[in-house]
Amino acid sequence: MKTPVTVLGLGAMGTALARAFLAAGHPTTVWNRTPGRSPELDDLGATRATSVAEAVQAAPLVIACLLDYASVHTTLAPLDADTSLLRGKILVNLTNGTPAQARSTGEWAQRHGAQYLDGGIMAVPAMIGGPAAFVLYSGAPDAFERHQTTLAAIAKTTYVGSDPGLAALHDLALLSGMYGMFGGAAQALALVSSEKVSPTAFTAGLLIPWLTAMLGSITGIANDLEYGAEPGAAGSNLAMQAIGFVNLLDASVAQGVDPALLVPMGELLDRAVAEGHGDEDLAVTVRLLQEANQQAN
Amino acid sequence: MKTPVTVLGLGAMGTALARAFLAAGHPTTVWNRTPGRSPELDDLGATRATSVAEAVQAAPLVIACLLDYASVHTTLAPLDADTSLLRGKILVNLTNGTPAQARSTGEWAQRHGAQYLDGGIMAVPAMIGGPAAFVLYSGAPDAFERHQTTLAAIAKTTYVGSDPGLAALHDLALLSGMYGMFGGAAQALALVSSEKVSPTAFTAGLLIPWLTAMLGSITGIANDLEYGAEPGAAGSNLAMQAIGFVNLLDASVAQGVDPALLVPMGELLDRAVAEGHGDEDLAVTVRLLQEANQQAN
Ligand SMILES: NC(=O)c1ccc[n+]([C@@H]2O[C@H](COP(=O)([O-])OP(=O)(O)OC[C@H]3O[C@@H](n4cnc5c(N)ncnc54)[C@H](OP(=O)(O)O)[C@@H]3O)[C@@H](O)[C@H]2O)c1
Ligand SMILES: NC(=O)c1ccc[n+]([C@@H]2O[C@H](COP(=O)([O-])OP(=O)(O)OC[C@H]3O[C@@H](n4cnc5c(N)ncnc54)[C@H](OP(=O)(O)O)[C@@H]3O)[C@@H](O)[C@H]2O)c1
Repeated sequence: MKTPVTVLGLGAMGTALARAFLAAGHPTTVWNRTPGRSPELDDLGATRATSVAEAVQAAPLVIACLLDYASVHTTLAPLDADTSLLRGKILVNLTNGTPAQARSTGEWAQRHGAQYLDGGIMAVPAMIGGPAAFVLYSGAPDAFERHQTTLAAIAKTTYVGSDPGLAALHDLALLSGMYGMFGGAAQALALVSSEKVSPTAFTAGLLIPWLTAMLGSITGIANDLEYGAEPGAAGSNLAMQAIGFVNLLDASVAQGVDPALLVPMGELLDRAVAEGHGDEDLAVTVRLLQEANQQAN
Repeated sequence: MKTPVTVLGLGAMGTALARAFLAAGHPTTVWNRTPGRSPELDDLGATRATSVAEAVQAAPLVIACLLDYASVHTTLAPLDADTSLLRGKILVNLTNGTPAQARSTGEWAQRHGAQYLDGGIMAVPAMIGGPAAFVLYSGAPDAFERHQTTLAAIAKTTYVGSDPGLAALHDLALLSGMYGMFGGAAQALALVSSEKVSPTAFTAGLLIPWLTAMLGSITGIANDLEYGAEPGAAGSNLAMQAIGFVNLLDASVAQGVDPALLVPMGELLDRAVAEGHGDEDLAVTVRLLQEANQQAN
């Protein structure tokens, strides 16, 4: 028999996870605060638990995918009444949170005699079970190794270290990249829509090919950070970029589009030039963001 | 003989353009404010003009690629002394600027009896002449048609309309998308570097695959804008996203990384939820950016 699993939380993501486990043949017990969510899971063979205590008893592998850590705490609180309930089990928390939240939930699990894995789901629900989805894991290495195959039912697994906070760190870094890209895309779509350009034609014909081509520059930034810039290599110097950036702000205002999403990048470029980096390239922006760190230390 | 071309401006980009024209066999005359820039062009067969008037007389197709419109004005000002110099020629301005700047330079060219094409170069200099580069053009349709093949020596050509401001609008929209993505990548790299994760390994193994996977969501946003959302289709509802976004801000601060680039997107998500869009998806952010427009009208 395949490893039984329990899924706590049947929002859009928890439901997708439960479906994937069921599709892979794992006996799957589900629990959700509001009963009766996602009735299609019943036809697929899910078992509904009426309490969290009942849910965690049903499987050695307990997956939590709830709105936030506040809901994780509320959901797990009943287990504090009987600390034997989680003993020997593995709690896999796929709820989005910070490294600090992951570490403290890991300590809570340890006090209950459970092993802890924290995870960051790098996918939208529709991608779960498909080829492009992956989940970052950190925490108990032996628990990960033992259940890697079961966890692979929902997405490719990527283990990033035994410190339970590391999955959240990588997850939040990737989400920062994503929200930057989505914010830029929103600005782009607002700008072209102001002249009645078709958003879908612009996206398919120009925006996606352009962003795809520009992904290579991120590799250049990372190389610069790790190995240093080749002297004179800046084909796109920051002084020129800071001057061009003003056109983005001006055109947004002229087209009646809110420039707020652009403003902090313009300020960062201006600061880079003011601090003498006008002939360097975009890796400088990463160093400026980190300076808060150096100043704090 | 291939069409002779003149290139005004030998910065990183103007130099790359001149090299591409020379490589394609076009007699190429170059001019730069500071003489002697990019000496390698001499070996490749470029002719150096000692004045702008001399430069524009050397070819029917005059390409300007200067820092900004202020430098375009300074550079072209000597031609006002003899308005016959540009008569019958085609001025192709590939300097980054706003739609308004493009339109007014188009009017200036018309007063000189020249046809005007405005262009936005969607490439870094190293990409010029290669397969991923493209240049957006707008303005005189017959001039574009006549010289399309010559212009293809530098990059794929994409004509976006006879209003000379349209290339700049598309260009600035694409640059907004790019700076969003680069800002997101900078935040991501600053976050993982704070825990001594290798920037190049993170970029190649996680960030680029993740951003590539998430490009598909931009198509979803554009579809929603153009055709409306399918009811209940939000697999990633904004209420959940606004709550998760706080983790990005908190983790940046905890890791000593400046959260400034993230702040306006967080505010936009919060506003979307406050205005009742918590169960919708990211297309709402585009509509909120456009509201400045509707309020102004
Ligand atoms: N959807 C995505 O694209 C995506 C991608 C990656 C990661 N994630 C992460 O996955 C997690 C779940 O997201 P989702 O999309 O499934 O969100 P969702 O559709 O909004 O569902 C939220 C879930 O949390 C439960 N919940 C909320 N407050 C609770 C509380 N106080 N006590 C107990 N349960 C509570 C809800 O139960 P009720 O049914 O009772 O309200 C529901 O099951 C989040 O941490 C999110 O960041 C989501
Ligand atoms: N590099 C890129 O990645 C890239 C990509 C797309 C578009 N562009 C656009 O291409 C244009 C040129 O960029 P670039 O990278 O070549 O910049 P750059 O390397 O900084 O070169 C700037 C050029 O402008 C000239 N210039 C500056 N001020 C001038 C003035 N007042 N009068 C006359 N000439 C002046 C400079 O001449 P001197 O040698 O005398 O200083 C030099 O030729 C910009 O509009 C930029 O936005 C660049």
